Amino acid sequence: MADLASADRMLLADALQRVQREVDEAFDQFLPVPDDTRAPLIEAMRYAAIGGGKRVRPLLTAATAGMFGVVRDAAIRTGCAVEAIHVYSLVHDDLPCMDDDDLRHGKPTLHKAFDEATAVLAGDSLHALAFEILSMPETSGDPFVRAELVAALAGASGWGGMAGGQMMDIAAESGAKHDLHTITRLQQLKTGALLGAAVEMGAILGRVPDEGRGHLRAYARDIGLAFQIADDLLDAEGDEELAGKALRKDEEAGKATFVSLMGTEGARTQARALVDQAIGHLSAYGREADLLRALARYIVERDH
Amino acid sequence: MADLASADRMLLADALQRVQREVDEAFDQFLPVPDDTRAPLIEAMRYAAIGGGKRVRPLLTAATAGMFGVVRDAAIRTGCAVEAIHVYSLVHDDLPCMDDDDLRHGKPTLHKAFDEATAVLAGDSLHALAFEILSMPETSGDPFVRAELVAALAGASGWGGMAGGQMMDIAAESGAKHDLHTITRLQQLKTGALLGAAVEMGAILGRVPDEGRGHLRAYARDIGLAFQIADDLLDAEGDEELAGKALRKDEEAGKATFVSLMGTEGARTQARALVDQAIGHLSAYGREADLLRALARYIVERDH
Repeated sequence: MADLASADRMLLADALQRVQREVDEAFDQFLPVPDDTRAPLIEAMRYAAIGGGKRVRPLLTAATAGMFGVVRDAAIRTGCAVEAIHVYSLVHDDLPCMDDDDLRHGKPTLHKAFDEATAVLAGDSLHALAFEILSMPETSGDPFVRAELVAALAGASGWGGMAGGQMMDIAAESGAKHDLHTITRLQQLKTGALLGAAVEMGAILGRVPDEGRGHLRAYARDIGLAFQIADDLLDAEGDEELAGKALRKDEEAGKATFVSLMGTEGARTQARALVDQAIGHLSAYGREADLLRALARYIVERDH
Repeated sequence: MADLASADRMLLADALQRVQREVDEAFDQFLPVPDDTRAPLIEAMRYAAIGGGKRVRPLLTAATAGMFGVVRDAAIRTGCAVEAIHVYSLVHDDLPCMDDDDLRHGKPTLHKAFDEATAVLAGDSLHALAFEILSMPETSGDPFVRAELVAALAGASGWGGMAGGQMMDIAAESGAKHDLHTITRLQQLKTGALLGAAVEMGAILGRVPDEGRGHLRAYARDIGLAFQIADDLLDAEGDEELAGKALRKDEEAGKATFVSLMGTEGARTQARALVDQAIGHLSAYGREADLLRALARYIVERDH
């Protein structure tokens, strides 16, 4: 059921490649290097934000916005705002006092390539950039849309979303006992909230009213969880070189994951079931949702 | 000229005390401690955000908003958003990889009282909280006002504002040669941008059109610079116990400051001239601007 047919594969590969190029170009424009001692900060932001990422979140925003005829440029700008939050969280997550990682997307992490202080500030500045982008009239001429975009992104990234999930993750590392229910909640916050915001913000741009976003929210919730289960599987079984980062860290830390709690086969079955369920939520839509369907399947089939 | 008369002193003392209580109450409501492993994160945010600060920024917002008849609750919520940015920047600034400070407002810094990872996440979460607050309809029922508030705050806090100024400050510490012009520019970004946003956001709440905010912007620019010069004077001459933090760090680091570049007397004269100039920018306003005038004078007279 969840296998990617060859046409879907091409649709998705084209869409990913396109959005990767567009997001890189947009960040390049958002981040001109000034001619003063701030230069290393903006260089660091560019180092983290340009190139390297899969850009799943901007693609989710662009694919959803595309279903409702949103101008491409607005969708890419909004996708960049979501990606800026994702990138800042990776930069801070990699810090020595957090996960202490040396490698990200196959190159040295930001604090290794620059220094820790610059990494803290570059993360903070990418965080602010996200909201700068959303508040520009170029992103949406309608202030109501801009205010809704900000609400969706801020809610997904703070203590009630991503940062809250990261805190629960730290508690899990320091031995807090986590069962499947708690891990699910943790991941819904840590990864799911921002993936959900990426979809929701595409719908906001498309002026889908709040009450019409239920199916899209359910889709996002399911792929968010499938995404994290797939990540746990890759961490347990994946290729470090392909991943471009250190793997098997959860296992070494004795941390509960979907794989440790459900076993490899159980986790794989669950991820596929979630993807089928996610695609089921799109049944009200026609071909215009094909990209979201392909993206859902890609999530469990990717090798990095 | 710039001396605080006794009536002004009382007006200001009352206003500061009131805004301190209101801001503490608002943060208390914004930050309920959840019954799960996120609890230490929210406890850390409360530790940093509630109590201790002078609340100059929220007072600037409330005083400006008050000139234009803005509902008090909206002004306090908006002031809290500005303060959340200020507080997050202090939390990150105090980290070992940044200024490595042990004391803030007379108590252990956040990473000392909790740990570094929690300090990074609490700073990030306060950063997101600022934009959550601004995007709530309770802060302003008008989405145009909300979008404008977000634009003002995001612009003032990112690489084009506060974070950019912090980066220049780091460059100054590592020996980049800074003359008076560069120090002025650095401080306009590091401190001035957010103080300016505090005033501007009060005017936005008051629906003062962009072209009508020139005098208020000029006032904010002058008090921002005066504020930093006064800070440099306090760092050079102040009482550590009263300040509740380590002083004389700039001197030890051999960093250029207004005091090292202008001398103690030169700096004091300059700060007073800036305050007089700031008050001059308010000449179009009557008694409704008295609090902004008193606040300007307080900036150079405070002892911590």
